[in-house]
This record gives sequence, C-alpha cells and structure tokens, in this order.
Amino acid sequence: MPQSLKGVFCPTLTPVDRDLEQNLGAFIGHCRRLLDEGCHGLAVYGTTSEANSFSVEERMAGLEALVEAGLPAARIIPGTGCCALTDSVRLTAHAVRLGCAGVLMLPPFYYKGVGDDGLFKGFAEVIERVGDDRLRVYLYHIPPVSSVPFSLALVERLVGAYPETVIGLKDSSGDWSYTDALLRALPGFGAFSGSEVFLLANLRAGGVGCITASANVNAPAIRRLYDHWSGADADAMQEDLSRRRQIIQASPLIPSLKRILAHHLGDEGWCNLRPPLMPLDAAQAARLIADLDGDGFAMSSSPASTPAVASA
Amino acid sequence: MPQSLKGVFCPTLTPVDRDLEQNLGAFIGHCRRLLDEGCHGLAVYGTTSEANSFSVEERMAGLEALVEAGLPAARIIPGTGCCALTDSVRLTAHAVRLGCAGVLMLPPFYYKGVGDDGLFKGFAEVIERVGDDRLRVYLYHIPPVSSVPFSLALVERLVGAYPETVIGLKDSSGDWSYTDALLRALPGFGAFSGSEVFLLANLRAGGVGCITASANVNAPAIRRLYDHWSGADADAMQEDLSRRRQIIQASPLIPSLKRILAHHLGDEGWCNLRPPLMPLDAAQAARLIADLDGDGFAMSSSPASTPAVASA
Repeated sequence: MPQSLKGVFCPTLTPVDRDLEQNLGAFIGHCRRLLDEGCHGLAVYGTTSEANSFSVEERMAGLEALVEAGLPAARIIPGTGCCALTDSVRLTAHAVRLGCAGVLMLPPFYYKGVGDDGLFKGFAEVIERVGDDRLRVYLYHIPPVSSVPFSLALVERLVGAYPETVIGLKDSSGDWSYTDALLRALPGFGAFSGSEVFLLANLRAGGVGCITASANVNAPAIRRLYDHWSGADADAMQEDLSRRRQIIQASPLIPSLKRILAHHLGDEGWCNLRPPLMPLDAAQAARLIADLDGDGFAMSSSPASTPAVASA
Repeated sequence: MPQSLKGVFCPTLTPVDRDLEQNLGAFIGHCRRLLDEGCHGLAVYGTTSEANSFSVEERMAGLEALVEAGLPAARIIPGTGCCALTDSVRLTAHAVRLGCAGVLMLPPFYYKGVGDDGLFKGFAEVIERVGDDRLRVYLYHIPPVSSVPFSLALVERLVGAYPETVIGLKDSSGDWSYTDALLRALPGFGAFSGSEVFLLANLRAGGVGCITASANVNAPAIRRLYDHWSGADADAMQEDLSRRRQIIQASPLIPSLKRILAHHLGDEGWCNLRPPLMPLDAAQAARLIADLDGDGFAMSSSPASTPAVASA
C-alpha cells in the first residue's frame, strides 16, 4: 500500500476581490508564505477555502495558477469532491494530470441519509473513470458541514476495494473517538485530524498529522508541535495551540481567519468572502483581534512579502 | 407585482443510461407525457431530478434539448440554485435567455447555519448579476435535504428588495405551518406546496398549487383535485392522493418513482440513478408495485408513446 502524506497541511483561504472574483496573485503569495512558514503541504479548495462557492472552472484555474507559479504540485492536495459525479471526475482527473500529491474528496453532499452502497458507488465511479494509477484519495469526513458522514464500514470497504488509491482521511468531525476508532480498525492508514486541537492525540495514536484551517495564520506553532510531539514540552505546546484555536473560532471560523490576515498584513481586501459567508461585524472583529493580542499572537510574515487583495 | 404561476408542476425525473449519462430522448418523451397528462408545467432539475448530481453543462444541455424539441419554455421552471455563486448566475441567466417562465432556486447549501444576511446577499448577487427584468425567482425551501432553510424574515426581505422578481416559493419542508405562516405574512405570494399531500390545504389558504415529485407517475389525479378543489369531492380526492403518496414514499422516493415508471412503461432503463442514489432492491420494488396494484394504481400513458432508456 502506498504511504500516506504526513505533516501539517493548510486548507488555504481563497482571497477574493470586492467583485468576488478570485485574486490569483494574492492566492499564490499566500500559498508560498504557508510553505515558507513550515506547512508540509496545501489542501487548497477545501471547506476553509470556500471551495464549493467556486465553479469547477474557477477551481481548475486557481490550481493551474499555483502550479504555473512554481508551487510544487507534489505538496498540494486539492479538494475535488462535488455533488455531481461528472464534476468530481473532472476535478480529480485535472489534479492528477497536474501532478498533485493526492485529492481530498468530500462525498456527494446534497442528498442526506443515503446508504453506504450509494456512497461507495460514487467513489468507485470517480476512481474508475479517472483510471490513473497515480491517483491518491484522502476521504473528507466533515459531518458538521457536509451532513454526509463516512461510516467506518464504508472507509474499510473503500480501502479494501482500492488499497492503492484510498490511503487516508481527514477527520473534521470534531469527535476524537472517530479518528481513534479509524486507527484501531486500519493501523497505518493516513488519518489526518481536521484541527490542531487533536494533533498530539493524533500523532500519539499513530496518525499522520493535521489538515487545519488555523494553519492559515498560525502555521509555525503548529509545525513546532508536529516536529517535537514526542518531547517533554509537547503537552504544553498542545495546550497553547488549543487555547489559541478557541480564540480564533469564538467567532465564525472562515471570516475570522480572513480578518486575522487582513489585520496582520494590513490588507482589508482579505476580508472579502463569497456569500453565503459574510465578514465579521466590527464588534466581532475587534474582540477577535484584542483576544489574540492578549494571547501574545503575532504572525511571522511581513506584509511586504505578500501581494495585496484589491478591496476598492 | 407580477402574478405567480399556478397549478400542478412536476419536478421531472431525469432518465440516465447505464453509463449514467442523461438520456435526452427519454427525457423529452417524459416531459411531453407529463404535459399531456395535465401538468401545468415542469420544474426540471429539482431534487427529484437529481439536479445536483449533474454538472452545470449537463443541466444546460438538457434544458436546451427540451426547448429545441418544442417543449414550451414558458411552462418550464428549472432549478438553478447551486453552492457556487457563479454556477447559479450561469444557470439562471441561461434559463432566462431560453425564455423559461421562472427559476426554482435553492440557497447555497454547503455551509450550514449561515445567517440571513449571507443568504440574502447570495440571492441579491444572482439577481443583480443576471440583471434581466424577465427573471422570476421561486425560492426552494427544502430543509430536510438542503439543511439550509429560508426564515420567513428572509423571504419577506427578498420580496421587499425584489418585488418584481421574487414572486414565489416551493415549500418542501413537510411542515404545513410554514406555508400557512407564509401566506398569512405575504397574501398573494406564489406559495407552492412541495407535496400533493398539502394541495387542498394550500389552495384553501390562497396558495397557487403544488410542485410535486409524485406528478411523475400520478399527474392526472393530482390535476383533478387542482381543478375541483372547491367541489364536494375535494376531501375524498385529497385522501386518495395522500394515501397513494404514502405508498410511493414508503421506500426512498426518487428510486421508487423511477421503479414505477420502469414497471409501467416496461423499460428497466428507468431504474438507473446517479450515485449516491441507488435503485430499490428487489424486495422494496416488489412491495412497492404490489402495494400500488392493491390501491388500484394504473398509469395513464402507454409504453409505446415513450422513447426507451438504454439499460444494456
């Protein structure tokens, strides 16, 4: 069975201008900074990226822009799971063609309460239609948003049918017992936690790391715990990370992350979001920044290194 | 304010071949039959149509095929609400360009628990980007599937901002009190029930009819109640419709409807579905058909009038 990726991956925010178009220059700059700050790789076009708020064409254009700008496809795992089978096939084949390390696949998420047979068939169709030995699939388990969970039985069935292809999962359930059960059922499986809050537990249980939204603003500290998880300071580092995460997600997570970048880079354009997401209001924004300041938070990057997002 | 459409509308099933591609010939034949059977119009590419299992391009191609085949665009209201703003704009503008009577719009449905401000902005962006006075929007309220409801306050706000455009709503909540409250808050608003189970209550409360999945197989009887709702037999007709609906939805609704068509048209190809939906198993199918036979159900159409769906 191929080895899973390991490390700290960032589901990258997608900067948009005031007209709600992607700002590819700022996107490339943000992705470069994240790798510089210690991310092992980039999970572009995930939930934090507002992926589903962009068309298939927009998502392909964004990924191509990164690769053309010299970002290493071998460190990128784009989200490619859509409601429509044909969209998932198109995005997945495109990612493989560009040389991406893998794809992070949501299940088809419009219909709720569908059975494992239908979800299995959905993934099987994508894998077989793409039909490329290079394809590596990481399942994206995020029931609080998708409302379509992966049962453990379904994961085992997919791994059994496609052992060379289905090699990992991102667990964004917020329920540690899911990752724990997964690693007991499938030792060596590429289990990523969906939040750094579970990073230490994940690594101690034999998992491979985390793919976490907070890495957009706090990558160096998360990387530090990843590198030193077996050291004496690991519990204290985890406590710091978890406390900071609580501050960040006290207001809606994606708008909060964009607000933090806007503040620390001095670029209000970062606050733009596609509806239905909306920027924080002034009171939320002020409390967020004050609470982070109170926690001693400082981003490592300088504003000068980063192309601006047009906000006018 | 423009008048809403009225009557019995069918969210049409989408026939697919064994390779899961749309069968446009069978689609056209099915749509023709539904109008012949008394449907006032067709709500193509709704939930029953597996709309979100098809790409934007596939949905546009299907709609174009209907119009090119001579089906009247003035009696068609396609579903055009997607997760991605740009997809919703593209599908909505396309429907207006083809002369469709209106569009049935889901809210962006990936993110859950978003506020009314974000949903309002999502609809406002679509309406303003399409920028065409001919556009008529029917909101699609189906919280059991979309998990993103329209609050009454949001409906009132959209109607207040776009009174010439937002003129109706399909209520598929399964909760009659929602339609009732809507009609009290907005008398004259184009409130369709999402099931014929509420048709009589809808019309008595001043609603405009129903957009109901069952019309794919039971249109003449639903139309009969619509035409005679103020007559002495109305309650008995409603009771018959509701009993039959219970039989149909005792197994998963969309596979059941496809199974009924397959059985009555003698065309197994109708059973094909895109994953994650799956055909009924043999036991479910046998019980469904037996229960309908026991209820005296007979479809009005002859198999000969209908192009086949390839099942081989």
